[in-house]
Amino acid sequence: MRNKPDVNELTMDTGVQQLLVKAREEGIDTAFDRAIKMSQCGFGSTGVCCRLCLEGPCRIAPNGKGPQLGVCGANVDTIVSRNFLNAVIQGVSSHAEHAREIAHALIEIVEDKAPYVIQDQAKLNSIARGLGTPCDGKDVNELVKEVAHKALEDFQKQSGTLNWLKLHAHEKSYKNWQQLGLLPVNAHLEIAKGIARMVMGGDADPANLLLGTITMGLVDGYAGLHMSTDLQDILFGSPRTVKTQYRLGVIKKEKVNISVNGHIPLLAEKVVEWANKLNEEAKKVGAEGINVIGVCCSGNELLMRKGISVATNYASQELPIVTGALEAMVVDIQCIMPGLQQVASCYHTELITTLPYAKISGATHVEFTTETADEAAKEIVLRAIDNFEKRDPNKIDIPEEVTEAYAGFSVEQIIEALSSVNAGDPLKPLVDAIAGGEIVGAVALVGCTNPRKKQDKYNVELAMELIKNNVLVVATGCSAHSLAKFGLMSPEGVKYCGDGLRGVLTAIGQANGLPALPPALHMGSCVDNSRIADLLTALANYLNVSVKDLPVAGSCPETHHPKALAIGTFFLANGVDVHVGVNPQVTGSEFVVNVLTSSKQDFPVTTDGLFGGKLIYEEDSVKAAETILDRIKKKRRGLGLR
Amino acid sequence: MRNKPDVNELTMDTGVQQLLVKAREEGIDTAFDRAIKMSQCGFGSTGVCCRLCLEGPCRIAPNGKGPQLGVCGANVDTIVSRNFLNAVIQGVSSHAEHAREIAHALIEIVEDKAPYVIQDQAKLNSIARGLGTPCDGKDVNELVKEVAHKALEDFQKQSGTLNWLKLHAHEKSYKNWQQLGLLPVNAHLEIAKGIARMVMGGDADPANLLLGTITMGLVDGYAGLHMSTDLQDILFGSPRTVKTQYRLGVIKKEKVNISVNGHIPLLAEKVVEWANKLNEEAKKVGAEGINVIGVCCSGNELLMRKGISVATNYASQELPIVTGALEAMVVDIQCIMPGLQQVASCYHTELITTLPYAKISGATHVEFTTETADEAAKEIVLRAIDNFEKRDPNKIDIPEEVTEAYAGFSVEQIIEALSSVNAGDPLKPLVDAIAGGEIVGAVALVGCTNPRKKQDKYNVELAMELIKNNVLVVATGCSAHSLAKFGLMSPEGVKYCGDGLRGVLTAIGQANGLPALPPALHMGSCVDNSRIADLLTALANYLNVSVKDLPVAGSCPETHHPKALAIGTFFLANGVDVHVGVNPQVTGSEFVVNVLTSSKQDFPVTTDGLFGGKLIYEEDSVKAAETILDRIKKKRRGLGLR
Repeated sequence: MRNKPDVNELTMDTGVQQLLVKAREEGIDTAFDRAIKMSQCGFGSTGVCCRLCLEGPCRIAPNGKGPQLGVCGANVDTIVSRNFLNAVIQGVSSHAEHAREIAHALIEIVEDKAPYVIQDQAKLNSIARGLGTPCDGKDVNELVKEVAHKALEDFQKQSGTLNWLKLHAHEKSYKNWQQLGLLPVNAHLEIAKGIARMVMGGDADPANLLLGTITMGLVDGYAGLHMSTDLQDILFGSPRTVKTQYRLGVIKKEKVNISVNGHIPLLAEKVVEWANKLNEEAKKVGAEGINVIGVCCSGNELLMRKGISVATNYASQELPIVTGALEAMVVDIQCIMPGLQQVASCYHTELITTLPYAKISGATHVEFTTETADEAAKEIVLRAIDNFEKRDPNKIDIPEEVTEAYAGFSVEQIIEALSSVNAGDPLKPLVDAIAGGEIVGAVALVGCTNPRKKQDKYNVELAMELIKNNVLVVATGCSAHSLAKFGLMSPEGVKYCGDGLRGVLTAIGQANGLPALPPALHMGSCVDNSRIADLLTALANYLNVSVKDLPVAGSCPETHHPKALAIGTFFLANGVDVHVGVNPQVTGSEFVVNVLTSSKQDFPVTTDGLFGGKLIYEEDSVKAAETILDRIKKKRRGLGLR
Repeated sequence: MRNKPDVNELTMDTGVQQLLVKAREEGIDTAFDRAIKMSQCGFGSTGVCCRLCLEGPCRIAPNGKGPQLGVCGANVDTIVSRNFLNAVIQGVSSHAEHAREIAHALIEIVEDKAPYVIQDQAKLNSIARGLGTPCDGKDVNELVKEVAHKALEDFQKQSGTLNWLKLHAHEKSYKNWQQLGLLPVNAHLEIAKGIARMVMGGDADPANLLLGTITMGLVDGYAGLHMSTDLQDILFGSPRTVKTQYRLGVIKKEKVNISVNGHIPLLAEKVVEWANKLNEEAKKVGAEGINVIGVCCSGNELLMRKGISVATNYASQELPIVTGALEAMVVDIQCIMPGLQQVASCYHTELITTLPYAKISGATHVEFTTETADEAAKEIVLRAIDNFEKRDPNKIDIPEEVTEAYAGFSVEQIIEALSSVNAGDPLKPLVDAIAGGEIVGAVALVGCTNPRKKQDKYNVELAMELIKNNVLVVATGCSAHSLAKFGLMSPEGVKYCGDGLRGVLTAIGQANGLPALPPALHMGSCVDNSRIADLLTALANYLNVSVKDLPVAGSCPETHHPKALAIGTFFLANGVDVHVGVNPQVTGSEFVVNVLTSSKQDFPVTTDGLFGGKLIYEEDSVKAAETILDRIKKKRRGLGLR
């Protein structure tokens, strides 16, 4: 066990630092301290440990030391590629189930069984048209039902491919996947088949397994990310620019504070609604009202559509509780630390789980279904109000800092902002800026924070490096939170940009009544990486090239969840380079590393050769930025740009 | 690395011993030797290692040494129960995909796209009736299509529960699962949902996770095992008693030898068909004909319906190659050792993979689809014939021993055999024997062999102990192979039985023209554990009790594959005690161990209390038999029997 390092080695966020000190003083361990105590296994962290049957575990040591084959005869390449496929399937299942939940909710809503109102008819029409569903003469309910049933087909059909893939994929990418036999049939089918091929005694050909991973990436992208975003936009509205606040200072001492943490906005939206309705109730217990704050991707969803402020991101999700002023933390699923309950039990905070298949021992469980959404949300908010009087005044300590930020940059919003510059041809200003070199390229900063890495540092450092070099940054997920906390989602952030990028952002911003666009555009939650893919497809179509030809990349500097690997695989399949700052547990196999990370001329089978995008694993953000820039410049040259 | 133990410490099978010596002399490692070399990780083998995200791997040491929480805060109970759910899902996915393949094959057959002929109209009618599909006036093709579509609904429906569960589950079990909210909706949906709940930041309540495992067990049993068996019986015929031969001596020096290894009989049946058609071709290269032999469950499928002889079971699947007289080993999926190719490359044997999602580097790939079944099977057999002349005479050494055995004990066949004793009330003789104590109970010996355990020893020892104590044994899978090899599937095996059991088996056998029924009845492949469940349901209905009340148990003494854990979970859900002889990687959590293995009076939440069946983990077969007998006697007392 290592000595506990100083809190400023654990996070860049001074509010988190302050509360980490408080937690330590109170004898409370958080994820950061648990990460220090937990030593990592060298086998597991490089992917060479196989636990797929009871003959093992089998572990292949590096450099030929010890046995080089598992008991069944699997070699290290087979083991690592199976483990990688397994991890990606875990991410895919999370996103697919998210999308399916929303599809079912839509059906319940239009059947008058669930108390939500469809918000975005324009998006509904656009998606329906894209799916080949005629809109004429149909009322909203009818159309929603048809779209939702098209969505459910992507979990049911036994031949063909995903409706949502055909809806969103770039034609050239589609043809490539079709030729390689990689098109997924339906999301659930591919998940089950993926596991059935990965099991002991299944697929043992590492190249074949990695191609299977690409299919899973397509499932993730289309039946997970895209479908979730589309259906959520239809239900809750497509995001528009909003101004909001970030950091732990958004927790208000005088208010009943409720944080929502998780991913599926069905719950979070209702909590906001009932917090508004019950505001007066809060005053009866002496509070000034109710304050809902976001954590992780539930935070992003509410932020993008409601401007709800965000307290913090994944790695520090326990810290809002340590303020002593959080009455309830409401969670659904994914990235919910089980450790929350241990921390909550030291305070008056009530941790409330809501899904029957995602409970935490010791937490309060208020079951949430779309049908009983109002009852559940009301009970949750009333519980929070009740808890206000249970606060221990001696334990309250809320960091003061807040940072202002803009969010809500859906593709629709970006196009609208560009229209203020060129109404007839909105993509032209952006494309001209890329062609002219004012914007060198674009990078999506996505995904997580990881308690093993200094929180926010790697996200922020990489973004700074990129914008300095005139690379536009778009961001989603916890990575977006990192950038917002450090001013990169505010117009003032343009001061960190190179001249070219700053000029373009200032021009577009001013055409829209802002001093400038922020250098990092917040495009939403992790499922909203779909928005980034849509933007790339639009650009590729505009330029009549493939997505793989665009001078763009994705990056997840502080990777923690397998969902990030699934999203990354989706972008690789589309020919977009993907950087990760944490070992994706594949480095134990030279073969797998080569397939994923080599350039096409250096190795016979690579994702670069097959799809045009490769994985870049680099822990140092400055070095990562260099590599990303090199690849972007290479792609620029491919397009005939300097 | 330990010294290599003598081969007679590795397996009871003298033929395998002989070839292990040969392999060692030739410098070839097999699974047995690889198992000796590979040391097991204490964390992984007790289930306490979590690799669900890139914050880890996190490992919880026993006895409170070191950190007791993962980085996310998951404790050892959460970690172990998630890992157990994960393993069960792997087994479920294998079986579900097996069943779905057959359903699709049936549709192709009746659409005249695949060259198979429906063999069992009586079974078809019986299944159709059970599914509520009227049979009157429909031709076979029409009815097959309706049944197959009912099967596919179990991978598509978004509400309700599995058609196949309603078709086969005992009413009282059904009600219990319904009350507990455990009924699965569709197989693929539950698999995806199971993974989505098991991921990092999902379900963290170990009791809830273990209940989720039960749902997966139901998927395995009904949409995996039962559906596979039913559809395969319709397609290939319900098994009838057949006489066959076991052990490596079934490989014939003078013939072209082809072994089929895997699970889905679509391929194996066609190989047999084309081996017959091309027999004369084999004579042209100097062979006396073609000899198809079975390994693992493909072996079981062919054995049960065609009487094809079986060379060996899982752990020694590489050894047929070491005879130097195997021209081809044809594989599909599940339990296929990647090590086969390393061994095959030392001989003239051609390893042939057949499924696009289950390849092995270096093997020949002949893609098999139901549509091209004839072409693929023909090519495979011709390749084998071609290889005959490539034999190295100096490398040929075939063990001589063979053992005779009877197989083919489908429920239909068992009822028919009992009808010879009491035509009007066939179950009565069996029930009377149980009530009278001549038969104390019944145990299903199922599942695997595991290269870490002395092959066949634990299966055979347990069976011997049980039949000595008048417990009837039925068997499937590789466990059945163990018993057959050692004479327990031959009428002579009754000499090992207690007086009561021997008397009953002799009486029923003689009524059917045999000296006696074998003391272990071969009921088929691993998916045919469905037949065992059907027999139990029939008995429970006859006695008007629950399945959980019957004096029966299941046992997998040499467990290796997660499929065995899935099957075991299915039987636990039905209230049947399940013994495993290998640590199912759960012993790191006292909580999980208690839920699964405690008796209901000793712990608040147990599978025993909820369902009436518990897990018994005991490596020593003699001790295991004692525990199983105790539980059987307890259940007898519950029924008012002595």
